[in-house]
Amino acid sequence: MATSTDVPNLKINSSRLMTSLHESCEFGKAHPYGTHETETGMARLALNDADKAVRKWYIQQAESLGCKITIDQMGNVFAVRPGKDSTAPPVMMGSHLDTQPTGGRYDGILGMLAGLEVLRTLHDSKYQSEGSIGVVNWTNEEGARFPIITVSSAVWSGALPIEAAWKCKEVTPSPDGNRYTMKEELERIGFMGHHPASYEAQPIAAHFELHIEQGPILEDERRKIGVVTGGQAYKWFEVVIKGRDSHAGTTPMAARKDSVLAAAKMIVESNKIAKAHSGLITTGIIEMEPGSVNTMAHTTRFTLDIRHPSDTVMAQIEDECRKRFSAIAADDSERGVSLEWRQLTANPAVTFHQDCISVIEQAAEDTTADLPRTSEDGKLWKHMVSGAGHDSFHTSRRCPTGMIFTPTRDGLSHTPTEYCSAEDCALGAQVLLGAVLRYDRLRAEMGLLTEK
Amino acid sequence: MATSTDVPNLKINSSRLMTSLHESCEFGKAHPYGTHETETGMARLALNDADKAVRKWYIQQAESLGCKITIDQMGNVFAVRPGKDSTAPPVMMGSHLDTQPTGGRYDGILGMLAGLEVLRTLHDSKYQSEGSIGVVNWTNEEGARFPIITVSSAVWSGALPIEAAWKCKEVTPSPDGNRYTMKEELERIGFMGHHPASYEAQPIAAHFELHIEQGPILEDERRKIGVVTGGQAYKWFEVVIKGRDSHAGTTPMAARKDSVLAAAKMIVESNKIAKAHSGLITTGIIEMEPGSVNTMAHTTRFTLDIRHPSDTVMAQIEDECRKRFSAIAADDSERGVSLEWRQLTANPAVTFHQDCISVIEQAAEDTTADLPRTSEDGKLWKHMVSGAGHDSFHTSRRCPTGMIFTPTRDGLSHTPTEYCSAEDCALGAQVLLGAVLRYDRLRAEMGLLTEK
Repeated sequence: MATSTDVPNLKINSSRLMTSLHESCEFGKAHPYGTHETETGMARLALNDADKAVRKWYIQQAESLGCKITIDQMGNVFAVRPGKDSTAPPVMMGSHLDTQPTGGRYDGILGMLAGLEVLRTLHDSKYQSEGSIGVVNWTNEEGARFPIITVSSAVWSGALPIEAAWKCKEVTPSPDGNRYTMKEELERIGFMGHHPASYEAQPIAAHFELHIEQGPILEDERRKIGVVTGGQAYKWFEVVIKGRDSHAGTTPMAARKDSVLAAAKMIVESNKIAKAHSGLITTGIIEMEPGSVNTMAHTTRFTLDIRHPSDTVMAQIEDECRKRFSAIAADDSERGVSLEWRQLTANPAVTFHQDCISVIEQAAEDTTADLPRTSEDGKLWKHMVSGAGHDSFHTSRRCPTGMIFTPTRDGLSHTPTEYCSAEDCALGAQVLLGAVLRYDRLRAEMGLLTEK
Repeated sequence: MATSTDVPNLKINSSRLMTSLHESCEFGKAHPYGTHETETGMARLALNDADKAVRKWYIQQAESLGCKITIDQMGNVFAVRPGKDSTAPPVMMGSHLDTQPTGGRYDGILGMLAGLEVLRTLHDSKYQSEGSIGVVNWTNEEGARFPIITVSSAVWSGALPIEAAWKCKEVTPSPDGNRYTMKEELERIGFMGHHPASYEAQPIAAHFELHIEQGPILEDERRKIGVVTGGQAYKWFEVVIKGRDSHAGTTPMAARKDSVLAAAKMIVESNKIAKAHSGLITTGIIEMEPGSVNTMAHTTRFTLDIRHPSDTVMAQIEDECRKRFSAIAADDSERGVSLEWRQLTANPAVTFHQDCISVIEQAAEDTTADLPRTSEDGKLWKHMVSGAGHDSFHTSRRCPTGMIFTPTRDGLSHTPTEYCSAEDCALGAQVLLGAVLRYDRLRAEMGLLTEK
């Protein structure tokens, strides 16, 4: 295990961080819930016009700090500030600028703006890092518009062929009634770069991601920083049920092939199975055709999001769901339906790199050293496992990776009122700066950089 | 009870009937399922451009037979051929030209085209009926676009205020993203008439409706005609569940307010309750917001269509559903959701008029007299109760009403492959003619008309 090293005593500017964060949220703000101008949520779906605008704004900010911009064929934007050795791969701070349709101002956005604030702090002090340091915006992390979560870091890491990502269609039709692909939308907004989206063409020395926790643990325990050691496994499926459309008033119950009823039974059953294994299961989308009050739907589609910290238990949950769903589909108290599972994404459980965990621990210890001891055991940071999926899960396959969590009010995320206080955002950004500078020194000491 | 009377031996033209039926289906045809040009379904949603076009075509046909056209404020179109007494209210043949989004070529359409064929037959033979005889097209019978079934006959009968009907919004947004009201769409297509939509302003002497059975009974028993004695009670509801949108990966199961899960439990439960009472229950539409794979929906709406031949049992089913749904909403294994019931329509069980039933019985007996005896008991018509709702349910509150059913292949309706053979369509139209002529004579004999 690498040892810690002294780093310069640089401080991020917390008011600049928050001003820029809210400025960036002008692009795609939606769902006001209070009277203050920042009391809104966000609807900045990947590759929509607001996403295009915030990308252009972000690139302008980074360029004004002397960063070199690279855009790859998934629209991932790499902004890199050169170090003394500018030929070795950069240490990157990565997250995402896209949001859920009813998202908040912190999920992804905090990581991107904290990364920018770290670069500004280095720029202001004219700090010469050993290697290059940068920020990366991963396209369509949310998977809310194009239903593959962290799709662009998946392509970068080699987990998903770019053709599969490019042809992924948006979940909800655009206002003109068409469902566009990622490729079409990348081209439309001018973010189809020429650079291959690959860890080989665009190598990263280490990946650090600051993110809100999106759960209630830090707040409940009155701690400030989560040092994330890894993430739970998760899979997404679309389940497609086909029955027969017939009249609600003239079709006896025993003669039906009711796709909605079968879907409802499966959703209820999946919930029981997940609870029995202490896992998580969620259906966020159901759609049916034709969609008429007095006609049974011939087709119903619903999504399943399954999660568990253990790959083995995850597989058990999926297996039990598949068996029970098949039994429901074949139920002969009615005339049965057909059933198809389509896997949208699969991510095994992840363990982050000990070097990254260590520098984050040291930065968290330093940053919280002088704060009031609010937690029961007096410690203001703790090790955590990520419940949500993040781009860092994919980068960890190809480079040392670590994540930092900040508290989230009421544990609520993916909703307009999602909130992390300005003080907690600043603490997170300071830990991110400390971790990146420590890692920069560490890799120089390990002889991974070329002396100039 | 009125007695039967002799009527002239007029015959409808079955090939003209089918040619016109398929000609009318050129407006709004959709969902081809075979190679023949008539092997398609229909998507002629009420008040859309195809509905506008078929209405204009239909009016032209009726005017060429000397009919007088009246359009009321619900867009109901009355085409009346004057009788010897043209001042008394007309005997009307009524049905509808609108279809389900994935509808067929017979539901409603057969009744309208058979009515036209009856008028053509009278016209060709220059038959002078005692009173006036006509056809009425009731607007938005399906309730598929504007979710109140038989909404315009409901207004005519006084069961629904016109303002409630006018403000009814379409279920699915129009291509421009707006949800238009019936009033807006009546005005847009030019079918907002000046005549009040009311049984007082536009009285009807008797209402006869020919319709496909939409169930399997006539086909299974190898009979040709259903003499409908009444209809089962039915109610439509929209159930609205509000929970909380939060992240699928970071929200523990016990901390959720999952509106989709609650809806699924309610749908499964409602099915059990209906079966226990030998009733029918159907959910044809579910919608949720925001609709994202890894976010719980904060709001889920679903429809319930409940039916039973007995008003009392119908009320029991609704009551049990309300109790069970409330218990599910309050379930504290999770954090509960809020629940609201919105009644979209309510129709008590209906009994048709004995005079109408009698003339239909006589016409059915005459029409089927020389056909092969295919059924087990040798009878080719039978008394039936309607499973589906029809405009005749509303007219029966204000005038003597009767219905005639024809066989429906596999009992399938509200689907593109819905089918009634040309032979069976012709038998139905012939029974309609016979019933209307008998009723015309009957009311003259009963002294209800003025001698000229």
